[in-house]
Amino acid sequence: MLNFDFYSPARIVFGKGTEREIGRLLKPHAQKLLLHYGGGSIKKSGLYDRVAASLREAGIGFVELGGVKPNPRLSLVHEGIELCKKEKVDLILAVGGGSAIDSAKAIAMGVYYEGDVWEVYEQGKEIERALPVATILTIPAAGSESSGDTVITNEEKQLKYGYGSPHLRPLLSIINPELFYTLPKNQVANGVADMMSHVFERYFTNTTHTDLTDGLCETVLNTIMKNAPKALNEPENYEAWCEIGFGGTVAHNDLVGMGREQDWACHGMEHELSAIYDVAHGAGLAVLTPAWMQYVCKENLDMFVQFAVNVMGVQGSFREPESIVREGIDRLKTFYRVMGLPATLSELGIGTDRLEEMAKKCTGFAFGAEQPIGGFRKLYWQDVLAIYRAAQ
Amino acid sequence: MLNFDFYSPARIVFGKGTEREIGRLLKPHAQKLLLHYGGGSIKKSGLYDRVAASLREAGIGFVELGGVKPNPRLSLVHEGIELCKKEKVDLILAVGGGSAIDSAKAIAMGVYYEGDVWEVYEQGKEIERALPVATILTIPAAGSESSGDTVITNEEKQLKYGYGSPHLRPLLSIINPELFYTLPKNQVANGVADMMSHVFERYFTNTTHTDLTDGLCETVLNTIMKNAPKALNEPENYEAWCEIGFGGTVAHNDLVGMGREQDWACHGMEHELSAIYDVAHGAGLAVLTPAWMQYVCKENLDMFVQFAVNVMGVQGSFREPESIVREGIDRLKTFYRVMGLPATLSELGIGTDRLEEMAKKCTGFAFGAEQPIGGFRKLYWQDVLAIYRAAQ
Repeated sequence: MLNFDFYSPARIVFGKGTEREIGRLLKPHAQKLLLHYGGGSIKKSGLYDRVAASLREAGIGFVELGGVKPNPRLSLVHEGIELCKKEKVDLILAVGGGSAIDSAKAIAMGVYYEGDVWEVYEQGKEIERALPVATILTIPAAGSESSGDTVITNEEKQLKYGYGSPHLRPLLSIINPELFYTLPKNQVANGVADMMSHVFERYFTNTTHTDLTDGLCETVLNTIMKNAPKALNEPENYEAWCEIGFGGTVAHNDLVGMGREQDWACHGMEHELSAIYDVAHGAGLAVLTPAWMQYVCKENLDMFVQFAVNVMGVQGSFREPESIVREGIDRLKTFYRVMGLPATLSELGIGTDRLEEMAKKCTGFAFGAEQPIGGFRKLYWQDVLAIYRAAQ
Repeated sequence: MLNFDFYSPARIVFGKGTEREIGRLLKPHAQKLLLHYGGGSIKKSGLYDRVAASLREAGIGFVELGGVKPNPRLSLVHEGIELCKKEKVDLILAVGGGSAIDSAKAIAMGVYYEGDVWEVYEQGKEIERALPVATILTIPAAGSESSGDTVITNEEKQLKYGYGSPHLRPLLSIINPELFYTLPKNQVANGVADMMSHVFERYFTNTTHTDLTDGLCETVLNTIMKNAPKALNEPENYEAWCEIGFGGTVAHNDLVGMGREQDWACHGMEHELSAIYDVAHGAGLAVLTPAWMQYVCKENLDMFVQFAVNVMGVQGSFREPESIVREGIDRLKTFYRVMGLPATLSELGIGTDRLEEMAKKCTGFAFGAEQPIGGFRKLYWQDVLAIYRAAQ
């Protein structure tokens, strides 16, 4: 086990009706907040009204900024920063999924950052402070409700970069599984693929003696895979949504990755797809993950045997490890298919013409300083290209 | 799954040599602290010197109060409160196991509490503030390094009461598994029994649809039980100690109990033993837990089948659930025996003469207001007495 530093202070208030508590919970922290959200769905569903009523009842003032899109854009972040400064906002409340929350985090640090906040993403600059962020989660997927991470797309430059800081951990997140009942099926599936990937990125490692986090990773994956088809096919199955909502948060609050080298190659490769083709993050991950597994599994076959047995439930002769691993990856593909997720880049509408460009951007080769990605196996641009092609 | 509110802000800095970081880590939070510890072992081992050097290097002043005993006493807490007030201390650094940390928490709230801090324990009063507490863990057991809980013994009244508040969550805990190498075997075993009990108290429940936390509980138990005999028999097995140290913290930071009704009867029954006979908490739990299991398992046999299969690895016919459960409990007893833990109250030097008194105190019957203990099955004083007798 490696040394680690674990800090996950986000308070999670979980369960039925919890969004009605938001005013009471934020009262000690906010006098005037920015309510940040996406499209009109929270107004149609009545969620906006419940939140606004709770804030008013607690005497918390608010201004609002809607319009967050999937793969949230830098331009709206800039708008949010100006608004917060002008209105002297002291907290940002994101109501939505990972996009609204990531956008809120970008605004939160942008308020104090001198210069364009994009520099923080591009140069990985260390920030010293940010406005506190609270969230009401409407899509279980990104885990941003408990993490200190944010991913923003610079639409002009066609770049999608992530950034993380302890200052960006939400103060408080409300997770009411009832709010997930009305999600379209593709968003359910994309969310599940995203949270599973957050575990995979931590799970696949060459670090040894990681019994506890191995088991935690496997438990989170097993729980998500058991309950995801129920949530997909019985949209009002509260208990299934509880497991998905809780699982998605534990998948990304860092606990399950402590003490082990992590990978993150699939996230890196997927960000290139989203930046250029604006595909859903989870759908891109579902396509790339099995291709990545097939490409890297020989690096440490035992790790993949463990995955096949403990996560995918493969039984059989341990004297034929390749066969067990192949079966494990096949079962994962089947799971994604059952969830209605795409299996190839073509299904995502991605042709072959820009694969090399993406492989070179993703590894920094395009910018003159190649840095291989991935902790499990280092991938150079040719490796990434091979994985993109295998996923074609 | 039940609604829940999860908040675990303690930062865990884990691994080799991390105690040397304490000055740097506390610098933003403390100008003058109270160093609180037990006997002379931290001086003999050199830990005291390393901590003092790190604090001095960071320019943090400190006063000190040693002498914390197992089952930490109210009288020393009073002394600590006076010292902190007099010396205008702004943080308490506990170096030790659960006793030193629990004592530190009592002092931390006592500094601001008007009146005798024992009232907080006795009356469950809500506190509004406490000094921040940091810890350097030397015994993995109590989980107090991440929890908001504290247990104090009032030696005059022969009472041992617990209390919990979010204000008592440590700011920061250092866990360096190397510090556990020199623990005597009985402390290793007691610590393991204590951390396992923290999971059991949360695991055994009648709440249904708790896939994620079921799995988390089982993983923590499996990890502890796999690694505990190694830590016992190979005192310098760093990797085994990593799993125990990390496992003990996750066992009690509340995550594994979220969304489920918890039990806590064994802890309640054990506190009576410690209050009167001053036995080690973990040893008392090892004696009482199997007796409790046998007494309550019929309440919800399926829960105990799950325990036997998923935790104790019992295989066999599910058409004979009683037999599976019996085998599961027997295997737990065997595990405790392998760890060198006692199996009966007699081995702890406890006779039959005060069993009824303890049963009546533990359920409040002795104070004129009986409140049955235990979430899994409610236990009245006669039930507790039956369990004490079965453990005799």
